[in-house]
Amino acid sequence: MSGFSPRDPGFRARIESSFAGQGLMRTLGVTMLRLDPGEVDLAFPAGPGLTQQHGFVHAGAVTSALDTACGYAAMSLMEPGAEVLTVEFKVSFLAPARGRQILCRGRVIRSGRTITVCEGEALADGDAQAPVARISATMIAQRPAR
Amino acid sequence: MSGFSPRDPGFRARIESSFAGQGLMRTLGVTMLRLDPGEVDLAFPAGPGLTQQHGFVHAGAVTSALDTACGYAAMSLMEPGAEVLTVEFKVSFLAPARGRQILCRGRVIRSGRTITVCEGEALADGDAQAPVARISATMIAQRPAR
Amino acid sequence: MSGFSPRDPGFRARIESSFAGQGLMRTLGVTMLRLDPGEVDLAFPAGPGLTQQHGFVHAGAVTSALDTACGYAAMSLMEPGAEVLTVEFKVSFLAPARGRQILCRGRVIRSGRTITVCEGEALADGDAQAPVARISATMIAQRPAR
Amino acid sequence: MSGFSPRDPGFRARIESSFAGQGLMRTLGVTMLRLDPGEVDLAFPAGPGLTQQHGFVHAGAVTSALDTACGYAAMSLMEPGAEVLTVEFKVSFLAPARGRQILCRGRVIRSGRTITVCEGEALADGDAQAPVARISATMIAQRPAR
Repeated sequence: MSGFSPRDPGFRARIESSFAGQGLMRTLGVTMLRLDPGEVDLAFPAGPGLTQQHGFVHAGAVTSALDTACGYAAMSLMEPGAEVLTVEFKVSFLAPARGRQILCRGRVIRSGRTITVCEGEALADGDAQAPVARISATMIAQRPAR
Repeated sequence: MSGFSPRDPGFRARIESSFAGQGLMRTLGVTMLRLDPGEVDLAFPAGPGLTQQHGFVHAGAVTSALDTACGYAAMSLMEPGAEVLTVEFKVSFLAPARGRQILCRGRVIRSGRTITVCEGEALADGDAQAPVARISATMIAQRPAR
Repeated sequence: MSGFSPRDPGFRARIESSFAGQGLMRTLGVTMLRLDPGEVDLAFPAGPGLTQQHGFVHAGAVTSALDTACGYAAMSLMEPGAEVLTVEFKVSFLAPARGRQILCRGRVIRSGRTITVCEGEALADGDAQAPVARISATMIAQRPAR
Repeated sequence: MSGFSPRDPGFRARIESSFAGQGLMRTLGVTMLRLDPGEVDLAFPAGPGLTQQHGFVHAGAVTSALDTACGYAAMSLMEPGAEVLTVEFKVSFLAPARGRQILCRGRVIRSGRTITVCEGEALADGDAQAPVARISATMIAQRPAR
């Protein structure tokens, strides 16, 4: 429970449709595990197509899913018709991304009309004791023309 | 010309071999265009497998190539046998990643024995007048055991 | 010359007045050396009231001036009446801040109606060959109510 | 309770002595409220010498105390004789820093032999429900020569 109330009761359908349109998420094998107001969990299986040079999951694959999780966490609180764009993010890498599945979680820290600040973390095999990476992201709402 | 002198005359072969071992770079279609001491250019073609929800190239794909470009720019100045790991990066997104090809450039700003600070940018169709994204990254050398 | 055209011909007077109202800039001894469209130079003398534990200038003092330089660089391109707020910044520290004077330079990388992205650097005694710190910042315009 | 064990039983005396040597902390009126392994709380009173142009506490003053809190949180887990330096930080500003006192809290997220990753937040009048700013920082240990 996030404590946030969505501005758009139809946020789930909008986000599921948007997520389905992301070619990169299909390419990386990312699926949505959870979609609540202000909180999104994505996950993808580790595999040879996603590695860096030492055989661990590449920082870029982890970041792709973290960015998407934060973006939809932000969008879940935006008004109907608003789209979300990433302004910037910072990701710190805490440990090599080992394991069979990488869980990427994004949540809203501050929800404004224009700017939403999110944070999140990547967990190998869901182990919350040993995060692989942490993200801090700024998202912006693109509101529909009136 | 970067003004940096490599500590390892064999840096090109080491980096090309390492790059070839990155599954994610193959999955995203990233190729290396340039490898100089302290400077690396990578590029990949835009395509339906790399998109976000509006059909532009996903921030995560751009970031994956920027991170790799910065990592190898850092590694090109490290001592023989050293490996490179990403400590953190920040990426700012300046414009939607349109175009047929995304050029991702990384260069060393400060080269230390342990820590290397890099910056870089992503350009759509090589247009240096309108960067798509800017990265600031911290890399760390993992030196071989003695 | 920055290549930017100000939206407000009276930007200099607005910024000088705003800068004069910053108590922290007075406390740190920061003065404005240059104010051009999209580019601002500030400087302050190193001194015992600004040090960290090793006697160099504290990262926080450097960051305070870098943030202000970026904020006014952004504001110099905003429309009349707009105020500027910092959304976020990242600062990388490249070397200890030695020297008698720290020059802090901010410039606009991308100027949008709402969001402005800036970068800048701190130089000890103006030495551009050895930057002390680099900033990447996101600023937001608060436009006057209509 | 942070769950971290200090490597140096004398960490408190070392950090208190180091903190006392920071000229900027005296200038800003920052005091140490808490010093536990991996966690540090600092605070300072808002006042006219620390303001930005709208009369709120300047982002740079908040950042100065957040950086110091994170630095000493990191140092509290380092080995005897090690010094701490800031590699980089990112700070997101969530709300104007109003109130009479700003509490700045830093804690260790990952403690390594060389690199420590910290996070923290600034709270106006200690209100944990409405953070003013959030920091994500990378600290490095400078170990004594042997």
